[in-house]
Amino acid sequence: MSELINYGMIGGGEGSFIGDVHRRAIALDGKAVLTAGSFSRNTENNRKTGESLNLPSERIYNSFKEMAREEKNRRDGIDFAVIVTPNASHYEIARTFLEKGISVVCDKPLTLDSAQALELADLAEKQNLLFAVTYTYTGYPVIKHARSLIAKGEIGDIRFINAEYPQEWLATEIEQEGQKQAAWRTDPSSSGISNCVGDIGSHVENMISYITGLEIDRLSARLDIFGKNRKLDDNATIMVDYKSGARGLYWCSQIAVGHDNDLSFRIYGTKGSLSWHQENPEHLQLTYLDKPGMTISKGRDELSESGARMIRLPSGHPEGVFEAFANIYSNYVSALKTKLAGKEPQPDYMDFPSAMDGYKGVRFVEACVESSRKDAAWVKL
Amino acid sequence: MSELINYGMIGGGEGSFIGDVHRRAIALDGKAVLTAGSFSRNTENNRKTGESLNLPSERIYNSFKEMAREEKNRRDGIDFAVIVTPNASHYEIARTFLEKGISVVCDKPLTLDSAQALELADLAEKQNLLFAVTYTYTGYPVIKHARSLIAKGEIGDIRFINAEYPQEWLATEIEQEGQKQAAWRTDPSSSGISNCVGDIGSHVENMISYITGLEIDRLSARLDIFGKNRKLDDNATIMVDYKSGARGLYWCSQIAVGHDNDLSFRIYGTKGSLSWHQENPEHLQLTYLDKPGMTISKGRDELSESGARMIRLPSGHPEGVFEAFANIYSNYVSALKTKLAGKEPQPDYMDFPSAMDGYKGVRFVEACVESSRKDAAWVKL
Amino acid sequence: MSELINYGMIGGGEGSFIGDVHRRAIALDGKAVLTAGSFSRNTENNRKTGESLNLPSERIYNSFKEMAREEKNRRDGIDFAVIVTPNASHYEIARTFLEKGISVVCDKPLTLDSAQALELADLAEKQNLLFAVTYTYTGYPVIKHARSLIAKGEIGDIRFINAEYPQEWLATEIEQEGQKQAAWRTDPSSSGISNCVGDIGSHVENMISYITGLEIDRLSARLDIFGKNRKLDDNATIMVDYKSGARGLYWCSQIAVGHDNDLSFRIYGTKGSLSWHQENPEHLQLTYLDKPGMTISKGRDELSESGARMIRLPSGHPEGVFEAFANIYSNYVSALKTKLAGKEPQPDYMDFPSAMDGYKGVRFVEACVESSRKDAAWVKL
Amino acid sequence: MSELINYGMIGGGEGSFIGDVHRRAIALDGKAVLTAGSFSRNTENNRKTGESLNLPSERIYNSFKEMAREEKNRRDGIDFAVIVTPNASHYEIARTFLEKGISVVCDKPLTLDSAQALELADLAEKQNLLFAVTYTYTGYPVIKHARSLIAKGEIGDIRFINAEYPQEWLATEIEQEGQKQAAWRTDPSSSGISNCVGDIGSHVENMISYITGLEIDRLSARLDIFGKNRKLDDNATIMVDYKSGARGLYWCSQIAVGHDNDLSFRIYGTKGSLSWHQENPEHLQLTYLDKPGMTISKGRDELSESGARMIRLPSGHPEGVFEAFANIYSNYVSALKTKLAGKEPQPDYMDFPSAMDGYKGVRFVEACVESSRKDAAWVKL
Repeated sequence: MSELINYGMIGGGEGSFIGDVHRRAIALDGKAVLTAGSFSRNTENNRKTGESLNLPSERIYNSFKEMAREEKNRRDGIDFAVIVTPNASHYEIARTFLEKGISVVCDKPLTLDSAQALELADLAEKQNLLFAVTYTYTGYPVIKHARSLIAKGEIGDIRFINAEYPQEWLATEIEQEGQKQAAWRTDPSSSGISNCVGDIGSHVENMISYITGLEIDRLSARLDIFGKNRKLDDNATIMVDYKSGARGLYWCSQIAVGHDNDLSFRIYGTKGSLSWHQENPEHLQLTYLDKPGMTISKGRDELSESGARMIRLPSGHPEGVFEAFANIYSNYVSALKTKLAGKEPQPDYMDFPSAMDGYKGVRFVEACVESSRKDAAWVKL
Repeated sequence: MSELINYGMIGGGEGSFIGDVHRRAIALDGKAVLTAGSFSRNTENNRKTGESLNLPSERIYNSFKEMAREEKNRRDGIDFAVIVTPNASHYEIARTFLEKGISVVCDKPLTLDSAQALELADLAEKQNLLFAVTYTYTGYPVIKHARSLIAKGEIGDIRFINAEYPQEWLATEIEQEGQKQAAWRTDPSSSGISNCVGDIGSHVENMISYITGLEIDRLSARLDIFGKNRKLDDNATIMVDYKSGARGLYWCSQIAVGHDNDLSFRIYGTKGSLSWHQENPEHLQLTYLDKPGMTISKGRDELSESGARMIRLPSGHPEGVFEAFANIYSNYVSALKTKLAGKEPQPDYMDFPSAMDGYKGVRFVEACVESSRKDAAWVKL
Repeated sequence: MSELINYGMIGGGEGSFIGDVHRRAIALDGKAVLTAGSFSRNTENNRKTGESLNLPSERIYNSFKEMAREEKNRRDGIDFAVIVTPNASHYEIARTFLEKGISVVCDKPLTLDSAQALELADLAEKQNLLFAVTYTYTGYPVIKHARSLIAKGEIGDIRFINAEYPQEWLATEIEQEGQKQAAWRTDPSSSGISNCVGDIGSHVENMISYITGLEIDRLSARLDIFGKNRKLDDNATIMVDYKSGARGLYWCSQIAVGHDNDLSFRIYGTKGSLSWHQENPEHLQLTYLDKPGMTISKGRDELSESGARMIRLPSGHPEGVFEAFANIYSNYVSALKTKLAGKEPQPDYMDFPSAMDGYKGVRFVEACVESSRKDAAWVKL
Repeated sequence: MSELINYGMIGGGEGSFIGDVHRRAIALDGKAVLTAGSFSRNTENNRKTGESLNLPSERIYNSFKEMAREEKNRRDGIDFAVIVTPNASHYEIARTFLEKGISVVCDKPLTLDSAQALELADLAEKQNLLFAVTYTYTGYPVIKHARSLIAKGEIGDIRFINAEYPQEWLATEIEQEGQKQAAWRTDPSSSGISNCVGDIGSHVENMISYITGLEIDRLSARLDIFGKNRKLDDNATIMVDYKSGARGLYWCSQIAVGHDNDLSFRIYGTKGSLSWHQENPEHLQLTYLDKPGMTISKGRDELSESGARMIRLPSGHPEGVFEAFANIYSNYVSALKTKLAGKEPQPDYMDFPSAMDGYKGVRFVEACVESSRKDAAWVKL
């Protein structure tokens, strides 16, 4: 029974959405157990959340600092901290736990500015700790397969990428009607310099970076504000030039009526193309030049080892977001276990978004905002 | 912390597939905790499985009879038993726990013959225990919405139903190559009188019964055996007459190349129609006479209360089979908690497949086999 | 200019639908020209239709008998007659033209009873004339490709076929509101012994017969009447046993809300499967065992010669029903030209539905009606 | 019989593709008849094409100038000229016929530079002639319905448009292998300053302009050349700012493996959205805020009068590119007939792409090329 890894959570109190998702995703595989938390700055909410999660009262902390200090000192203290607070507090909380020698999983975007993100990446490395940033969607098995297909040259050299992330939920100004999620996302003091690019454009950047390995050379971005009285972008178009010579086009939107959560990409190479939609996450379209398009899914082809290992159910049994989340945690916890045992994790298990990936995401958002302020002038990354 | 419900599992040892699915589905919501088990008749497998699940050795039982007896006597004994063994043993195990006063969740098909199923249903009622049969697919939120739409008369009087469940996995005789799942399913001594109708045709029957409330008056079935040396059906066509005057057509197949797990239905009423595919489980197609078809999904319309309550993620964030499974357990555990507190569960929480539903499934399989033996003659139910 | 083949039309006056479709389809390729007609028993309608089609008044005939007689005697008389009247008159008209030595294209179903159909087939052969029955949907290029794939054994031995043809248009009793098409189709005196099976079930039979070459050994049919006061079927379920040992399931319906004209098939073999939908007529789904499904379309794979020859536009440029119709005429006219030149047409150009195909369709309808009258008893063909 | 309108064709000889499409599309409705032509500068090709089309030898002209002069002088001379030559010759041919007082239908792009296009538009107006530019895809009935929905405010104020036109056919350098279509399109002397934007980007511009009525204020374009040794673009990304404040994003590509001819748009307004794909041309997706998406098609909703009038077949009977083409000609010929009778055509029948639409297309291409040469700087239109 000593096999189990213990974790604590910061944020994720009642009324929060994403904390619950993280907890369920971890529970699904049962490899790590919640043993401590500081769920809300509201004492009452914090206590109630902790109790509902069956935590002993001494491990329900009123502040993350107290939590870091106390857990550090317990013999059965947490092995890693999960940070699911709004963006603005990520940096300070992550730094605190890292300084105490506790590994960290943090929601994205990692920080409000890229210097902070880089600092966290450096600190984690210096402390020899594991740091993950939960870009959920790279957790899908067929995404790992897509990455493997590209790495093997199946679609040839990449020429053009068209990736997008349209949503509808901010098509009207629901932040003015008390919708809590909308309120903090559209508020610069919680969200930072960008709403739409920061929240979902960054997923596009991360997904393409993960799958293709391409690095962005420069970009030209036009950020739009369609909602009345909004201060931050709710739609953005981004032209991307990659260092390889490939070209890209990203679009993200929160005012795109008809789309729920429609992250997708299409990647065109010299020999073939790949396309994928997050709302149909277990199917990958692969087409070779002049040939009929093929729909790859678990059980309909041999997925790469990195993807196949992540499958919990046979073909035709849908797995979704909880499972994608769980996949990120699965690799992270496996790697952490090895690290805690004093060994180096296998590269395969280091397959989760790192602090450097988090940094790249924040840097991308900064560049988009800068370009847009200059009327879509090209900005080097 | 006394809030948690305890459960034990019979079956689900290493090498089994479905036991793990049940455990993860229950873990996802964290309302019930595994505290005992008898996972395999193989002592070593049993022990290893129990240990990997962090059970104390005294609650890893070598036989289900011992488990029922011991757990019955513990103050902290299990509140319900989950039976995930092959079909042939369901009856005896379920009876044993019911007799000891322990509620039961049992995989489907419930028993090998309908008399046994009826006996279990009667016994559960007599003992005032809760009995669920895990017909997974009725757990999807939009399925509950579909049921509600029909009940409200949105598509008018039902005229015709076309439902099917094609799979590919037994298109070749993999049971002869040591595939364990295939081996027991195609073996009459484990599966009973039917393979294909019993395994998946019964899901069609249950789904249509659940959604529409229609009762079958008579049926005409043609069961086929395409795999060489097989003794049981791997494909079946069933014409159904409902008592209401509606007509139906069911098809199930395990040799349908190109289909993974493709349960689907189309229901035609006088005013509209509904269609749904299990492999795209969160979308429901609703079409009114002469009108454009609509795609209903969570967040794209107000789901019925029974469905909306089951949603864990916002629109566009796929939930799948684990969540459907969890939904059945969620209602069951809520109802059980109320019952253990000496009160009568609200009807809403009794929304899970019952022992009587299990009976109906077994009876359906029997009628199909009988009809087929008589060259597709009509058989009354 | 003497290259052009001349044709006449019987039926297809103002208010008719299908006559116009035939004329446009023939005009699309410009290989045959309308030079005579008897478009309606209503003299005024007949005259107006003929004039609007730029026919000289002496070739606008008040009766098909006069037309057959006169055209037979002209040096520039028609080379073939197109019959697009309601079902009940097909036999007499076709016989009349055949007896005069004029080739015939006739709408389906060919006749009201199979003896008449056989008589026409025999007469055409005796007179050495070309007879086509316009089962439209076999004209699509990918259908010809599907046929070729099956003939080459690409999907192995056929085991099971699931084919259907659901429509919505008779979900309400529009025949009582003066809808002309609905009125004659639901009237036994025009339609014969069946409405739904005769009108669209026969397309299913013909399509499967054309693609697979399988012959039906026996069938069990349940014909339903859902529309109030109807005398003929508007929905039917048909279980089919083929002589090869393969099994089939056909469903046709005119009360299936949500479907426009949704002929489709799925054919399962030992090595692969094929599926196709008429409403997406240029795409064919091909899946091999365990492999990703592929979408075949013009330009995305090399179609068989018989299909490729029928393509008028490059990939991605939709062709539809007019073009499918035109394909049938294209082969027919090419073959007829050769025949009129005293030579035997190449087998490739004889690729159009023959009088014997028409006979098989009528025989199929008769068997379905007989089976249904006997409560779905098996009927030998 | 004097009802028929006569037309002549310039270009469209053997080996050409689009001339045949125009001829078949016109034949489909039978309202206009080909009576003269100058099909190729190759005398032999010209003669053979004319003869195969049953033209008398005196109306098969060796030059378009001779044709314009002679037809002008005939009492039964052509009523309009159809120009289907490569882009570079459009201007001179069109001018010649207009100067002789003959109406013109010209393929797109109208001319190589916008000054010429404007000149043609002015000349047609001065001569009181009808001029159409065959932007095919606006001919689809549901496109006309989409336009009507937007005009009625069904989706509110337009905020964002994402439109694209990806193709695969130039993913490899087939112009070096003698593919004639590829050769002239990638050759600046035939195609002008742009290949991809000129050939297909211009369809995007025209489609969006037609449906929405929005005018482009400025654009930023990045034109790419991926094919080796190519001088003209084969891929392009274009950010568009409309005068209304709406924003747009166009992408066109000839190297997008997996796409045949995949023109599509998605238009997002404050109240709803519309999307459409050319490869599925009879279905239009309409989604209102928070509501289920709807699939509109002929027969599944009342199309606008402008669209409904264009339908030749009932719901579920696919019509495609020939019919879309025919719809443009149908309106044009109806309007021309009225004009030739000395009356003013009804506005409804003036619903075809005009010379001014042709001008706008050429101007758009010029602006894209200019912007791209300036590293995607904004260019005013």
